[in-house]
Amino acid sequence: MRISELSRRSGVPVGTIKFYVREGLLPPGELTARNQAEYGEHHLRRLRFIRVLTGIVQMDLSSVRDLLLAIEYEHLPLHDLFDVVNEALVPQAKVAMPSPSLAPARSDVDELVDRLGWRVAPDAAARDILAQVVAALHDLGCDCDIDFFLPFAAAADQLVVQELDLLPAGREADARAAAVARAALLAVAMAAMRRMAHEHHLAVRYADVA
Amino acid sequence: MRISELSRRSGVPVGTIKFYVREGLLPPGELTARNQAEYGEHHLRRLRFIRVLTGIVQMDLSSVRDLLLAIEYEHLPLHDLFDVVNEALVPQAKVAMPSPSLAPARSDVDELVDRLGWRVAPDAAARDILAQVVAALHDLGCDCDIDFFLPFAAAADQLVVQELDLLPAGREADARAAAVARAALLAVAMAAMRRMAHEHHLAVRYADVA
Repeated sequence: MRISELSRRSGVPVGTIKFYVREGLLPPGELTARNQAEYGEHHLRRLRFIRVLTGIVQMDLSSVRDLLLAIEYEHLPLHDLFDVVNEALVPQAKVAMPSPSLAPARSDVDELVDRLGWRVAPDAAARDILAQVVAALHDLGCDCDIDFFLPFAAAADQLVVQELDLLPAGREADARAAAVARAALLAVAMAAMRRMAHEHHLAVRYADVA
Repeated sequence: MRISELSRRSGVPVGTIKFYVREGLLPPGELTARNQAEYGEHHLRRLRFIRVLTGIVQMDLSSVRDLLLAIEYEHLPLHDLFDVVNEALVPQAKVAMPSPSLAPARSDVDELVDRLGWRVAPDAAARDILAQVVAALHDLGCDCDIDFFLPFAAAADQLVVQELDLLPAGREADARAAAVARAALLAVAMAAMRRMAHEHHLAVRYADVA
């Protein structure tokens, strides 16, 4: 199809399509004549992918570019690919705030992961992130111990299984892109559910004082 | 205490404390002599709050400022306060991408909220966000209907109840700040759990091919 039809079918303006091509986010069309390029269904899928991530998921273009590189590098194991998605969704500080609570929190997290029987690398960033959360809660005077997080683990476990059951077969870029888009969208869905659950339960609890 | 002690106890450099005061994020200390100000425990709590949100939660300073205003405006109902937190955590596009799937998705979401019996305003932003997710998943060829999201609702429900059970009594700014910091930290905890659950389940499923 011509760029005008690609624009019509994707809802993306022609100028934006050309911008994505210049920025390397979209492969160029095949030149069929001087000044005329032909685009295929994979361009349409790629455009939809970019629009979902920069639209409802609110990812910036440089994160989308990182994701596209990770998707196209088919030797990258899926769990690393998902980690790139999760990192783009909730970017985390590389440097922890110093706190005497951090070391015991990290031990608690490691023990929790052991109890769950989860296969998570000892140096996985998520262990550090969770330890920082536990330490910060402690420093803020919240007396929730590590068992407080068991329901979080159960919920994450269930939702991830449900998500992975949708995983398309195949390791080619299209299947990987679909998996990435779903993971990102489901994280947004969970955040939206959380907002509604907050509103509901606060309405129920404080109906008399609101 | 003097600013030097405030700095030592909070771990925040003196220059940064002065910056926060200039930016209106931290109230100035009480002048006890020319060029000498006295700070109290509430300054220390406020500093810890700012450091948690800009550190592990990775919020930008302008979102923190919005949150502080919402915390201090004690007439703002708690559910609106939590909505400010949730919006700062996962900022959402105000304009939906046009898609013919959006209107039916919105109906599906409204029906789901009805079935759940949740008290959520008809014009709550989260309804639109979830509808956009459902529409985008549909447009990406994912055949998950609205029932797919029931476990998400159950998980959100459970985690929010658990979180609200921690809610300190009182409506004064300190209690509200503690509630906000917890909500933000628990969202980060959930994201970290999700990362670990992804890693674990992908390791289990693709142990042979990874």
